[in-house]
Amino acid sequence: MKNPPAISSRAKNLQASPLRKLAAAAETRKKTGVKVYHLNIGQPDLPTHPDVMTAVRKFNEPTIAYAPSNGLAPALQAWSSYYKKLQIDLKPEDIVITTGGSEGIIFALEAVCDANDEVIVFEPFYTNYNSFASLAGVTLKPVTLDIKDGFHLPSERDIVKAISKKTKAILICNPSNPTGTIFSKAELARLVKIARRYNLFILSDEVYREFAFENKHYSIMDFPAIRQQAVVLDSASKRFNVCGARIGIVGSKNKDVIASVLKMGMARLSVATIEQLALIPLLTNPKKYTSPITKEFKKRRDIVYTGLKKIPNITFSKPEGAFYIIIGLPIDDADRFASWMINQFHNNKETVLLAPAAGFYATPGKGKREVRLAYMLKEKDLKRSLELLRLALAEYNS
Amino acid sequence: MKNPPAISSRAKNLQASPLRKLAAAAETRKKTGVKVYHLNIGQPDLPTHPDVMTAVRKFNEPTIAYAPSNGLAPALQAWSSYYKKLQIDLKPEDIVITTGGSEGIIFALEAVCDANDEVIVFEPFYTNYNSFASLAGVTLKPVTLDIKDGFHLPSERDIVKAISKKTKAILICNPSNPTGTIFSKAELARLVKIARRYNLFILSDEVYREFAFENKHYSIMDFPAIRQQAVVLDSASKRFNVCGARIGIVGSKNKDVIASVLKMGMARLSVATIEQLALIPLLTNPKKYTSPITKEFKKRRDIVYTGLKKIPNITFSKPEGAFYIIIGLPIDDADRFASWMINQFHNNKETVLLAPAAGFYATPGKGKREVRLAYMLKEKDLKRSLELLRLALAEYNS
Repeated sequence: MKNPPAISSRAKNLQASPLRKLAAAAETRKKTGVKVYHLNIGQPDLPTHPDVMTAVRKFNEPTIAYAPSNGLAPALQAWSSYYKKLQIDLKPEDIVITTGGSEGIIFALEAVCDANDEVIVFEPFYTNYNSFASLAGVTLKPVTLDIKDGFHLPSERDIVKAISKKTKAILICNPSNPTGTIFSKAELARLVKIARRYNLFILSDEVYREFAFENKHYSIMDFPAIRQQAVVLDSASKRFNVCGARIGIVGSKNKDVIASVLKMGMARLSVATIEQLALIPLLTNPKKYTSPITKEFKKRRDIVYTGLKKIPNITFSKPEGAFYIIIGLPIDDADRFASWMINQFHNNKETVLLAPAAGFYATPGKGKREVRLAYMLKEKDLKRSLELLRLALAEYNS
Repeated sequence: MKNPPAISSRAKNLQASPLRKLAAAAETRKKTGVKVYHLNIGQPDLPTHPDVMTAVRKFNEPTIAYAPSNGLAPALQAWSSYYKKLQIDLKPEDIVITTGGSEGIIFALEAVCDANDEVIVFEPFYTNYNSFASLAGVTLKPVTLDIKDGFHLPSERDIVKAISKKTKAILICNPSNPTGTIFSKAELARLVKIARRYNLFILSDEVYREFAFENKHYSIMDFPAIRQQAVVLDSASKRFNVCGARIGIVGSKNKDVIASVLKMGMARLSVATIEQLALIPLLTNPKKYTSPITKEFKKRRDIVYTGLKKIPNITFSKPEGAFYIIIGLPIDDADRFASWMINQFHNNKETVLLAPAAGFYATPGKGKREVRLAYMLKEKDLKRSLELLRLALAEYNS
């Protein structure tokens, strides 16, 4: 019998999520009676506000019918009103509701890039950008950020070096997953200047907008000069703690971009009707829901910062936003260390699952001594996790 | 001020849904007091079974969290049990739950094709296949079916002609949207033989499986010889009347295909949690829900068949399945006729919105005299719609 036909090269090359790489080992370890603290994943542990389920239960149409491809009118209106409160000018007609932020990023990449076009990204970056780029046939050109600068942007000259004739856009995540960095107004202005000079789109993933603990967060929409070149990528998942609702948006004042995204939206027909409607109360009165979540994560950020200061010889900056931090470890290979920690290390039958940072870099060899922490645990568990990390490093290096 | 950067060629080339092309005209016409019967769209008018909303309301987790990327375990189990009742061997590990059937088709195309690879389709075909192919960078190679054969498959020789070195798969929709045709066991065996000889995948869109009014419907999974080359594309939307829930699946015994689809699934994280769970009661006891829907559509199919027989000089066959039919009209240009009908024609202040069939063909010029009817209306409205079509044709041709 002959072999079945081969799958595509792009499918073969698609990265399996590095965040889940060690998850199987963690499950095995748990079966041996060891408690595992998860510092590796971005699923908030907080409960979803009961108003969401109240809104879900209110759904009272006779048929769960297709929504319009751009979104249900009252949902689009609610998103627009949410932005208005932030002084962001996105009218309902400037918005297409997407299945999570993920679909929106794929649509935006496909709307501004043809196959083999290039997009500038700043590494370390959200690892799924690799998969979105693979699916869209787009090449990501990384500009490396430095842990010693708190992963802030390099000079205009260093960014411009990465631009070629094939470059169509700059993709940023601000506040950043995985670094927790928030780009300042001056840094964004630098990108705006570059985008204008080289006629590039700026695709701005702002799903962590409300998680800004130090300075004000600026949206790409705060820069009127880039109005026709700016695309906001957004999601309700983190700020409202509704990850499983799968509701995001693409927003832009560029009518060609929105028309393109809408055509892609027409192909996949619609986004889940019930969730679009269920989020309306949250979008209409966002602070009620985002403030307690932001407050909780600021508290955790402070715990992480205090805990990390007790660990000798590690490199990190105070996280400014989101709920991630990348730290440099006094070891050779973070992959090996994370693997050792989940498979062998324990203290009082407890250990920690880490995400090695190499998966967040596109340049081979970068980030080898770094790990990303996601601070999704309650105060006590978070403190204990950092203590375990400290103990593990001491044991590993002795 | 210079122009903003251009959007991508693929976005420009993406077809806006031809099904929605005349929808704006219909809205305008309605404002003049004319009642419009929609024979153009695939949104069932039936109510969703109340058990779905009961299941939705039962959701009682504290957090609406991400589901696993392949789907929630009990939902995968429910899909597998649904298939088992149909003697289709798809275990939970052979299935990835997708956001509607649409996402599944895109994932499957990307899993088996690289950019510029080719897929055989039979035209007329579901128009969104064009958009999925554009998004995946895949070229659709149409084999034209004949309205006089009831859109059944041509000979092996005629199909094989369309195969090139770049061909990776044959994509079928069975029962077919837009033709209502069900491929016989012998026709499917023909495809299986071709796929085996040329080592192609068969991607089988079976979302209308239960809408089989005449003969038994065979799944591609009923052919053991093609086990490693068969991919089932499926959706809960039509059979359970939950279009707005956006739940579909990709199913295959080919582990490479499923692993690839899962990697794509990991990129977009997950499918809506609440809907995955809400469909479990329907998948566990499917006949309770599908039988009344199928019965209703069989009744409508009979009304359509009877009504069409009263219209002189049109070409059609008795629809075998799904809830569509393509009919040939005694006119030159169905686009112009549909436009005239929605903009000018009325009988007692009533008219009909039709879908011109050219949009369902890839070959330019094909289907120019054909329209697709979707029979989504209740008995009385359906009868009146067909009467209006008869009157309009008589007036148009006089």
